[in-house]
Amino acid sequence: MRLGILGYGNLGRGVEAAVNQNPDMELCTVFTRRNPESLKINSKTAKVLSVSEIENWKDKLDVLILCGGSATDLPEQTPKYAKIFNVVDSFDTHARIPEHFNNVDKSAKEGGKVGIISVGWDPGLFSLNRMYANAILPEGNDYTFWGRGVSQGHSDAIRRIEGVKDAKQYTIPVEVALEAVKNCENPTLSTREKHTRECFVVLEDGADAKKIEAEIVNMPNYFADYDTTVHFISDEELKKNHSGIPHGGFVFRCGKTGLNKENNHIIEYNLKLDSNPEFTSSVLIAYARAAYKMANEGQTGCKTVFDVAPAYLSPKSGEELRKTML
Amino acid sequence: MRLGILGYGNLGRGVEAAVNQNPDMELCTVFTRRNPESLKINSKTAKVLSVSEIENWKDKLDVLILCGGSATDLPEQTPKYAKIFNVVDSFDTHARIPEHFNNVDKSAKEGGKVGIISVGWDPGLFSLNRMYANAILPEGNDYTFWGRGVSQGHSDAIRRIEGVKDAKQYTIPVEVALEAVKNCENPTLSTREKHTRECFVVLEDGADAKKIEAEIVNMPNYFADYDTTVHFISDEELKKNHSGIPHGGFVFRCGKTGLNKENNHIIEYNLKLDSNPEFTSSVLIAYARAAYKMANEGQTGCKTVFDVAPAYLSPKSGEELRKTML
Repeated sequence: MRLGILGYGNLGRGVEAAVNQNPDMELCTVFTRRNPESLKINSKTAKVLSVSEIENWKDKLDVLILCGGSATDLPEQTPKYAKIFNVVDSFDTHARIPEHFNNVDKSAKEGGKVGIISVGWDPGLFSLNRMYANAILPEGNDYTFWGRGVSQGHSDAIRRIEGVKDAKQYTIPVEVALEAVKNCENPTLSTREKHTRECFVVLEDGADAKKIEAEIVNMPNYFADYDTTVHFISDEELKKNHSGIPHGGFVFRCGKTGLNKENNHIIEYNLKLDSNPEFTSSVLIAYARAAYKMANEGQTGCKTVFDVAPAYLSPKSGEELRKTML
Repeated sequence: MRLGILGYGNLGRGVEAAVNQNPDMELCTVFTRRNPESLKINSKTAKVLSVSEIENWKDKLDVLILCGGSATDLPEQTPKYAKIFNVVDSFDTHARIPEHFNNVDKSAKEGGKVGIISVGWDPGLFSLNRMYANAILPEGNDYTFWGRGVSQGHSDAIRRIEGVKDAKQYTIPVEVALEAVKNCENPTLSTREKHTRECFVVLEDGADAKKIEAEIVNMPNYFADYDTTVHFISDEELKKNHSGIPHGGFVFRCGKTGLNKENNHIIEYNLKLDSNPEFTSSVLIAYARAAYKMANEGQTGCKTVFDVAPAYLSPKSGEELRKTML
């Protein structure tokens, strides 16, 4: 399987690293909007090329993995490139997924290609677990918790405050809420009851800590609805203790069965990830394999994780899977 | 969807109850090898019929759910009925799955039907989670723990001992082993280090408790390799506190990513089930829906959970799923 990457940020670097762990794959090219000369990649064999050359690779790549952002890159890129490549993306703006699906579906069908969208862990593996669990236990409640992990969006929001030099924000599930769900109490939880937010902030010289703290905890949408803790630390401390990008979370379904609904069942799925982008990349890679196999069978159009039979993700044959994993 | 059940034990009763929770399904018939007159079912509308009449229902059922045992019933029944019905079974003898698959595949293709085998939670949902997690994290370790739950096989083994009137056996994961796995220590665990076994035993009048306890804890295959605790209790206590059939367990994959394998990730899936057969039945029902949809699309042959795209399990359309669950 010959792979290409478009976009070489955290996600692109994660895909590059993950390819090394999958002997059936080869990274051929990294396409970038920057000057290709300026880009230093880790792979010794892959070419770094300007995105302007991408169409020349039409028949030389089996799957193109789109590693751009969901705000402006993917809504344009995925439909565009699904006409000429099998593509996989990690589009994660939940509300716009139906629209994105339709755009990619139209292009991929026109081009006779497969496009798998919204791949990662949420949307992605968490969605899968919500869906399986709902199909199995039709009467019940769903709970999703995120963290403990770094929220890029919330960290950015703090960094935009005047007087803030740098910042990292962690989203943390509330332990007592998690316990209530695990104990099948089917609690009704407000936003504040589900997650807390913890911020590590480096100030510019002479900045007013009190004022900045108030600005953070009262920020609408981002922090006002949560219990937020702010720690002011040094630049060195931030680099030393908060340079990772961990994340994770929990998906629960608590459901009932029995003639009188007398039996409770809890399905729990949880992730603890040292590196959010590297894990997401590993999911993208597995779905790239699926896109390749589905295209080889003559399938076309847009797919999500719901449409992809699990076996397509694995390098093993059906026979091997049944023998070793069933 | 018109459903039939073959076999009315715990699993059959579970399917009957689960059908009530799925408005797109109707239970039409329960086929039994017993005298149909002797069978009291809960459903007011379904017919109870002798298995000898089953072929007359050839065109009147969309899916037949096989609720027999894996030792002798399913190896014969599933290939036999896959010729004339779409079928789903919970065949769980892991070592014989490849052979069972081939037999069912041949029959189902001959009859132009779909047969989904080895559906439940292990094999089934646990297998799915092992497979997804292995495809995503190719370098890592797998751990499966079962319990706390009732093992029917181990309870039966105790009941066969002379002087034992009744017994229930619980399989219990060892807490310290679970913790080591959750902490990403990648431990190597012996059989004894993974699970303990706890037995609640009712003696016949005059039976020798010491002798029976020794017989249990030293029983080869069943108990000798485990730390086993035996409690002797009264008949009343067994009925009062141990009449349920709870089960559950954990599937973990601990894997590494990064150019230098510097990042750890843990994927955990766990189930806590008040009723093992009712939960298994709920999984069977969801895959019955999948068998029906796949057959309607013209697919034929034997499938496992690996071959079934998740969306087939749900009563919702692709559009609804993308909107509400992705």
